[in-house]
Amino acid sequence: MIKAALSVLLVLVAISSAFGKYIPKTGKRIPQTLSRGWGDQLIWAQTYEEGLYWSRSKNKPLMVIFHLPDCPHSQSLKKAMADDVEIQRTLDEEFIVLNLMYETTDKHLSPDGQYVPRILFVDPSMTVRADISGRYSNRLYAYEPTDLKLLVTNMKKAKKLLKSEL
Amino acid sequence: MIKAALSVLLVLVAISSAFGKYIPKTGKRIPQTLSRGWGDQLIWAQTYEEGLYWSRSKNKPLMVIFHLPDCPHSQSLKKAMADDVEIQRTLDEEFIVLNLMYETTDKHLSPDGQYVPRILFVDPSMTVRADISGRYSNRLYAYEPTDLKLLVTNMKKAKKLLKSEL
Repeated sequence: MIKAALSVLLVLVAISSAFGKYIPKTGKRIPQTLSRGWGDQLIWAQTYEEGLYWSRSKNKPLMVIFHLPDCPHSQSLKKAMADDVEIQRTLDEEFIVLNLMYETTDKHLSPDGQYVPRILFVDPSMTVRADISGRYSNRLYAYEPTDLKLLVTNMKKAKKLLKSEL
Repeated sequence: MIKAALSVLLVLVAISSAFGKYIPKTGKRIPQTLSRGWGDQLIWAQTYEEGLYWSRSKNKPLMVIFHLPDCPHSQSLKKAMADDVEIQRTLDEEFIVLNLMYETTDKHLSPDGQYVPRILFVDPSMTVRADISGRYSNRLYAYEPTDLKLLVTNMKKAKKLLKSEL
């Protein structure tokens, strides 16, 4: 009986390998998402260049989030932001969003160093809004989950310049 | 007992929908993937910087695919490559992969212009392998679905320099 089951299994494996899709040795993987948990319903730019392009063409500010999967501060901020329906709605409707785990070559995106989590706003004029910062003087662009109100205020600031420039 | 459990479940569902996740006006979206259909089982770099980082640290060549969703040549090449188990396996095990819909600022990735589909190999030494090209003299880095054999040959070339340099 076990032998028969094994045979069937072998045939199935043979069929799936003959006509099937590639499956890694380590087992099937879940496809990677661009959101990485920062908001599965948002439309994420893949690269900074793409983000700038959309920001200019849609005349919306760009939010760039730098984070790392093994950084607990990144993870807790991510959860707080992803769970906040109003932030998600505002980001979806009024912003271009980009989350990055690797630094870009553009130094303007690290005005006071490269650390995570770090949130920078970029105006559609392609100016990095270094003036829009959080509450920590040693890490100006860091936010904690308890800083979401300040983040919302800063999102409004990022929107304002855009409108006043029109 | 089951009834009680069900009630609790119902209450939980009600709570989660009242305080639930953000859903766009236009309806729930399927989260974007980094693979975009070029190989859901592969681990894709998000940006060129990330690709270069992995290429250097894993000492594997980087394959960069430029494509567009509304380009039928990109789509047919994508299907052919995604369906090819051997190409997928080789890419997974021996390459770093990156697919981009927006051009980078690095001119080395467009030796004969910006067009899609276009496949460039980059050595772990961070040298773009402009010498590894396809069969079309007017678009050196373009491939058709019928060119997969040449692509495999070129993948071997991209691997070879790496090894000879060790």
